[in-house]
Amino acid sequence: MKVGGRETRAAWWTDEGLRYLDQRLLPARLETGLARSVEEVARAIETMAVRGAPLIGVVAAYGLALAARRGEDSANAEARLSRTRPTAINLWRGLEAVRAAAPDPDRMLAAARAFDDAVVAAAAAIGAHGMAVLGRGTRVLTHCNAGWLAVQDWGTALAPVYRAARAGLGPFVIVSETRPRLQGARLTAWELREEGVAHVLASDGAGPHLIQQGQVDLVITGADRIAANGDTANKIGTYGHALAARAHGIPFYVAAPLSTIDRATAMGEAIPIEQRSAGEVLTVEGVDESGASVRVRVAPEGTEALNPAFDVTPHELITGIITEVGIVPATVDGIEKAFAR
Amino acid sequence: MKVGGRETRAAWWTDEGLRYLDQRLLPARLETGLARSVEEVARAIETMAVRGAPLIGVVAAYGLALAARRGEDSANAEARLSRTRPTAINLWRGLEAVRAAAPDPDRMLAAARAFDDAVVAAAAAIGAHGMAVLGRGTRVLTHCNAGWLAVQDWGTALAPVYRAARAGLGPFVIVSETRPRLQGARLTAWELREEGVAHVLASDGAGPHLIQQGQVDLVITGADRIAANGDTANKIGTYGHALAARAHGIPFYVAAPLSTIDRATAMGEAIPIEQRSAGEVLTVEGVDESGASVRVRVAPEGTEALNPAFDVTPHELITGIITEVGIVPATVDGIEKAFAR
Repeated sequence: MKVGGRETRAAWWTDEGLRYLDQRLLPARLETGLARSVEEVARAIETMAVRGAPLIGVVAAYGLALAARRGEDSANAEARLSRTRPTAINLWRGLEAVRAAAPDPDRMLAAARAFDDAVVAAAAAIGAHGMAVLGRGTRVLTHCNAGWLAVQDWGTALAPVYRAARAGLGPFVIVSETRPRLQGARLTAWELREEGVAHVLASDGAGPHLIQQGQVDLVITGADRIAANGDTANKIGTYGHALAARAHGIPFYVAAPLSTIDRATAMGEAIPIEQRSAGEVLTVEGVDESGASVRVRVAPEGTEALNPAFDVTPHELITGIITEVGIVPATVDGIEKAFAR
Repeated sequence: MKVGGRETRAAWWTDEGLRYLDQRLLPARLETGLARSVEEVARAIETMAVRGAPLIGVVAAYGLALAARRGEDSANAEARLSRTRPTAINLWRGLEAVRAAAPDPDRMLAAARAFDDAVVAAAAAIGAHGMAVLGRGTRVLTHCNAGWLAVQDWGTALAPVYRAARAGLGPFVIVSETRPRLQGARLTAWELREEGVAHVLASDGAGPHLIQQGQVDLVITGADRIAANGDTANKIGTYGHALAARAHGIPFYVAAPLSTIDRATAMGEAIPIEQRSAGEVLTVEGVDESGASVRVRVAPEGTEALNPAFDVTPHELITGIITEVGIVPATVDGIEKAFAR
């Protein structure tokens, strides 16, 4: 997608190593980082310099290829990358894809590139299928960032929006800011602006009210892991929007590639939920009047905080899963049929 | 309630004018402000230096008494104060109480003091009645600040918690941070710390997840206006917690004095919802490493934002309204009977 009018991806392979947009700095600064070792790749994932379930998979894939190229031990490299973040199943998908090509470094890199291309192709197809649920001027509420920054290109939740925008349908996006890390405010609002899509920001607690007031036509979010029965782990705060959508009879869609579906996990309760540091809740990073990035504390010193990074939306609340093979019912049968196609 | 071990109120009359804790500065700095004219009282309310529905009523009452003392025109003073914030009905209650004593400035001040004392007495009684829903170690989720800062003393939602704490029941409070102004993080966490009540902070989007996970026994929030049928306007984000409480079968209580009930408003749809500035969503104020207060921008420049200050929780989701006369069903009948006592 476009940055300053130029097509850009969220991460790309270079001869020096893996180059990525450092998403911690957006929207204040557009800078890239370079990971030249598995440890640097792992840290980029842990610190959320790169984030978003599909992108984590791509980056992990390149990380394993990078290890092979550098002669690092593959098993150690895979173990290190596996420990970065527990919820997004895509991480393991990326590792599996590259492990299957081991031990030849060139074949492993080719596998990582193929995995990357498949993620982008799936995102493009999600956009095409998801566009069917958008009419002229549809008002879409989304949470967190499931745009191209999270998926290399197009995005998952935002892919249908971008397609609709390019088709001249004039979609309108209500962006939930997504505390604690504010991916909605920082990343989704930035992406939409760069692509010229009309949008407005709102605090997370405003979503149910805006839905109640008839200001939202449908909700689309991404997913970090979808269980075999359709229960979906996604960024903390998603579940509240799903409850509100149900209470007011508007559709709630999850958009994700089939690779985000973990058929080995029967239901949402079994999905591991990452607990992140209290500091993310106790502080906020932003830009001061001089344009400098500053982290400010918003709670009394010594306050403790809970910081679950994800929540699970039960499949009953999900209208459908927008995938690269079409819109799939969030049920065991629906999901099995999608994989059988 | 206590600040640094000393009993303190949120606002108090002095010969110079109305003195108040400037709640915009907490928890970084404990400073008072002084309003010596109606205009300064009105600005303290508008800028949320003083906030919380019952406290707004008390401050407006003193403001009208102050006008009389200074020889300002009473009708103009009342009109100015009425324009400050539209949602909390308590504002009009305070003005009515003092207007009834016009035109004698001494009688008007006495009326303001009596109104103030009645608010505190109601809060104490809310604590006594509300304690009945708390057992040993009950885990209470609350949103925004409905503690003593919002009500002069005791609070509404927190009054039962403080009573339980003093009775040795060891309550535990999950504090929803309450974007955009972060009254939970800044004020409720500070109050609870000063009173020695165990608590933990969480982002607003985490509430439904924590309820789903069985980490919350019940929810108690305050109210800015309760319609005749029990529909309740309260700080934006309340409604999502109410939906989650219902989905998981835990009680959702509203705590408020009868003066917050507006029997002239039939249902929630008719309650005016204040729309505040986009700047509150686009920026966050906190303390930097040096201890200085800094406001940082968290979204791209030029981003637009919706900022409804309140939402309405339908009466069907409310287990009961904890008032100074007992726990009242959130129904027309329940409310009428409470007023008939």
